[in-house]
Amino acid sequence: MALLPKALSRLIESFEKLQGIGPKSAQRLAFYLLHVPQDELDQFGDRLKTLKSSTVLCAVCKNVAENDPCPICSDQNRDDSIICVVEQPTDVLSIERTGKFKGFYHVLHGCLDPLNNIGPDEIYIGQLIKRVQGTGNRVQEIILATNPNMEGEATAMYITKQVKGQMSKVKITRLAHGLPVGADIEYADDVTLSRALEGRREY
Amino acid sequence: MALLPKALSRLIESFEKLQGIGPKSAQRLAFYLLHVPQDELDQFGDRLKTLKSSTVLCAVCKNVAENDPCPICSDQNRDDSIICVVEQPTDVLSIERTGKFKGFYHVLHGCLDPLNNIGPDEIYIGQLIKRVQGTGNRVQEIILATNPNMEGEATAMYITKQVKGQMSKVKITRLAHGLPVGADIEYADDVTLSRALEGRREY
Repeated sequence: MALLPKALSRLIESFEKLQGIGPKSAQRLAFYLLHVPQDELDQFGDRLKTLKSSTVLCAVCKNVAENDPCPICSDQNRDDSIICVVEQPTDVLSIERTGKFKGFYHVLHGCLDPLNNIGPDEIYIGQLIKRVQGTGNRVQEIILATNPNMEGEATAMYITKQVKGQMSKVKITRLAHGLPVGADIEYADDVTLSRALEGRREY
Repeated sequence: MALLPKALSRLIESFEKLQGIGPKSAQRLAFYLLHVPQDELDQFGDRLKTLKSSTVLCAVCKNVAENDPCPICSDQNRDDSIICVVEQPTDVLSIERTGKFKGFYHVLHGCLDPLNNIGPDEIYIGQLIKRVQGTGNRVQEIILATNPNMEGEATAMYITKQVKGQMSKVKITRLAHGLPVGADIEYADDVTLSRALEGRREY
């Protein structure tokens, strides 16, 4: 005997498919929504259904945007000599929040991950190379802001090799490694601490 | 300048309204959904929109159900001499999963919580009393399975007073307190351990 009404168990199923939502959370969310006004449910439902049709990938930087080109790529006041390469659209948001970067972005939509069959053709690496070549010698620096883990490092190495092979003058940089602000040296892991030492700066 | 497409930021807003979903999770979920096939998004949206119209409250036990009366209340094989009172529909699921209870349920949809203006009239206490009275002397035991916290205890006390005042013959019980299975006595809190001692059983 099915104890839950189908409408509830199906909604729970939909929530369970989401990344990071387990069966218990899915159940809690679905039951919570029973107490939400119908117009909010309608709104939520419509927003889900129109999500993909109301967004595009910017043809230049591959970021998720409302229009093509995206607001960043169509901003004339930004520095076109520098491109920051990130794995995900959310990384663009994080870097923009710092307010310290005034160049353009390139979103790879992933990183090289041979174990999961993600090779260079599955992410936007080729488009990055073409884009940099297409600007003549305009681009002087590429910041590789992929994640500081194995896949991110491999992706950075691969891109460096590709860029250096074809455009030897472009400077390639990587975000600094070191202690996060507010951290305790006592609890820092060995690799981070070694990197922090290697990268020490004059005070 | 709004960095996020409206479709995304609005969906993030909808997710943020959900209980237990913070801004970071909401953002992660919305970006995740960009990679989900359109037909799954449509399905998810429709399930949200039809959630409330496809469910009813069972007129007998107030549980959320597809039809009224709910499958439990219309089950002829259950024991009608015993009613288990719970705070939420999810509690019914938990108790049903044990397979140890064959009576009927009554869902209060909350507990007494004067600080949040939840009094006896805001939850289904009156309906419980009427329901028990309506069966003549059929109901012999009421298990008060409200949560073992302050609000749940207050709710149990209030219901006991109401029932005893009008139907002195009905036995009222409360779920046993004690050590959870698999727990460590060393780490049990004092109150739980005292209750476990008080409620000790012959081996």
